[in-house]
Amino acid sequence: MEDARSGPAAGGATIGELGEDRVLARVLPRLVSGDAALLGPGDDAAVIAAPDGRFVVTTDLMVHGPDFRLAWSTPYELGWKAAATNLTDVAAMGARPTALTVAIAAPPALGVDVLEGIADGLREGLAELAPGAGVVGGDLSASAVLTIAVTAFGDLEGRAPVLRSGARVGDVLAHAGVRGEAARGLALLFAEGRDASGEPDVALAQAVRDRHPALVSAQLAPRPPVAAGVIAAVAGATAMLDVSDGLARDARRIAAASGVGLDFDAAALGDDVRLALAGAEDHGLLATFPPGAAVPAPFEPVGRVVDGPGRLLLDGEPVEALGWDPYSGWDGRTG
Amino acid sequence: MEDARSGPAAGGATIGELGEDRVLARVLPRLVSGDAALLGPGDDAAVIAAPDGRFVVTTDLMVHGPDFRLAWSTPYELGWKAAATNLTDVAAMGARPTALTVAIAAPPALGVDVLEGIADGLREGLAELAPGAGVVGGDLSASAVLTIAVTAFGDLEGRAPVLRSGARVGDVLAHAGVRGEAARGLALLFAEGRDASGEPDVALAQAVRDRHPALVSAQLAPRPPVAAGVIAAVAGATAMLDVSDGLARDARRIAAASGVGLDFDAAALGDDVRLALAGAEDHGLLATFPPGAAVPAPFEPVGRVVDGPGRLLLDGEPVEALGWDPYSGWDGRTG
Repeated sequence: MEDARSGPAAGGATIGELGEDRVLARVLPRLVSGDAALLGPGDDAAVIAAPDGRFVVTTDLMVHGPDFRLAWSTPYELGWKAAATNLTDVAAMGARPTALTVAIAAPPALGVDVLEGIADGLREGLAELAPGAGVVGGDLSASAVLTIAVTAFGDLEGRAPVLRSGARVGDVLAHAGVRGEAARGLALLFAEGRDASGEPDVALAQAVRDRHPALVSAQLAPRPPVAAGVIAAVAGATAMLDVSDGLARDARRIAAASGVGLDFDAAALGDDVRLALAGAEDHGLLATFPPGAAVPAPFEPVGRVVDGPGRLLLDGEPVEALGWDPYSGWDGRTG
Repeated sequence: MEDARSGPAAGGATIGELGEDRVLARVLPRLVSGDAALLGPGDDAAVIAAPDGRFVVTTDLMVHGPDFRLAWSTPYELGWKAAATNLTDVAAMGARPTALTVAIAAPPALGVDVLEGIADGLREGLAELAPGAGVVGGDLSASAVLTIAVTAFGDLEGRAPVLRSGARVGDVLAHAGVRGEAARGLALLFAEGRDASGEPDVALAQAVRDRHPALVSAQLAPRPPVAAGVIAAVAGATAMLDVSDGLARDARRIAAASGVGLDFDAAALGDDVRLALAGAEDHGLLATFPPGAAVPAPFEPVGRVVDGPGRLLLDGEPVEALGWDPYSGWDGRTG
């Protein structure tokens, strides 16, 4: 089934047949460069507005195999997720996302419709999650492995960045976004979206989607609370991060950087506490707020900051770090 | 011979064995974040100074196979070239490079010493070509194909960016950097650096290096005239670009964007005019200067801007576009 997804659509051309210039001529018109682009794609570099004299920057790779399967994700979803995950890193600094650059390495035999779909997902992910932000530049290269490299920029609007290191004992621990849904979606795809030989399968994945649309969507096209980053910063958040590796593993990063302990309330984490703590790729925002401050929506209190550098607690008891490592988590398959 | 280069050095560990956190702990100390980094690596995103309220950004991928061979390039050279090529794109806008982000996708079996070597090359390439600039962030992912994604930033220092579209009839056409050396180095590696089956070979490549150190270095670790970008902008350059795809193909881009013709003087291009025009990857700077302005060193006059949108001439006669396309130029091998 893989060829049906990675090759061109019926009647379509491959990027190898078209060559770089004609591929870009088909892909670039699907993107917008956004409000911050003083000069968009087409020259050696773009020029982006940074009104307060600083900019926030983060970069992330999505690789066919460890990070996505073409039998499971549509090209549109790949573009959407590439935008969403990077936008959340910008938001986690308390910044407003302004722009992305996108570099793609792709096999020559890939259909140009795949790149068009990625561009559509990027455009619409930006429009929904970070209105006004756009794609200001990129690169296209040949590779045996489809790889999407996104770099995202943001504007702090005169505020200090919200670091991981600012949590203080007594602060409220709060979270915005889903908890464990992306991991549940991935587990369903692994359990029911592969054929008898273990290969990801288009038709089986579609059946999983039909039964569990929200969970599959949480994994393949997440809708992180990007706008909540600025909301937290304005409300006085003392620390914040993007929860990409699971709530427990990422919370430990705030605990280590701030030299504090974090104590989660099990009752605030839903029915499956272990999944809420361990499930990766939800891309929620975990933040701490001063004891006197109101916790702004969409954040919900999930615990408190306590003594003990680097400690992670659940209802006052230590919990293990649970999470995801890119080298222990990939079985070597692509699909 | 390939395993000897892509596997770990004797006694070394693979990145799969170490895992992401320990790999980063070994690689990050080899990098400096530079003068513009208000907040360097370690949080969700970095914060970079943009003193005039704008920043320049460009992004580029280097992929094992089409863009480099591990039997030919040392890890140090990969890091150096990744820095050099992106810095030149920033320079081509007339900007001073300030910072890079670097995302690397690598096979789990790769030795961590390869990433350490890449980091060393990045650091020293930055120190030589763009003093004060540093690496402010990055990402590490697993992939079957070693892939290096660099995004580079620059400061226009209050000047207008130098675009491809500003050349005017009567301007002087000038070039800074080597012409054809990178292509000669690559041709030597293809001719003499491969074994009988056509595979890139470490020992044969070393012999080519010993005989032609300057040409091989021009290909594997180029020293583009990065500082010349600001020099050209200050001197009033009307158009400029990075010559990555060959002088002829890139000159045609200025001609098309500016709606002018460009007429090269054969006598200014050295002994092998065809190679000077067609050879890719030199990463010189091609610029146009107003007729009355002095052409600043290291630029040398190589022709003039004439009538005729998109026309490319040599001593007044039309020349063919010659150059490089990523999908026609890769034979599918890695090595």
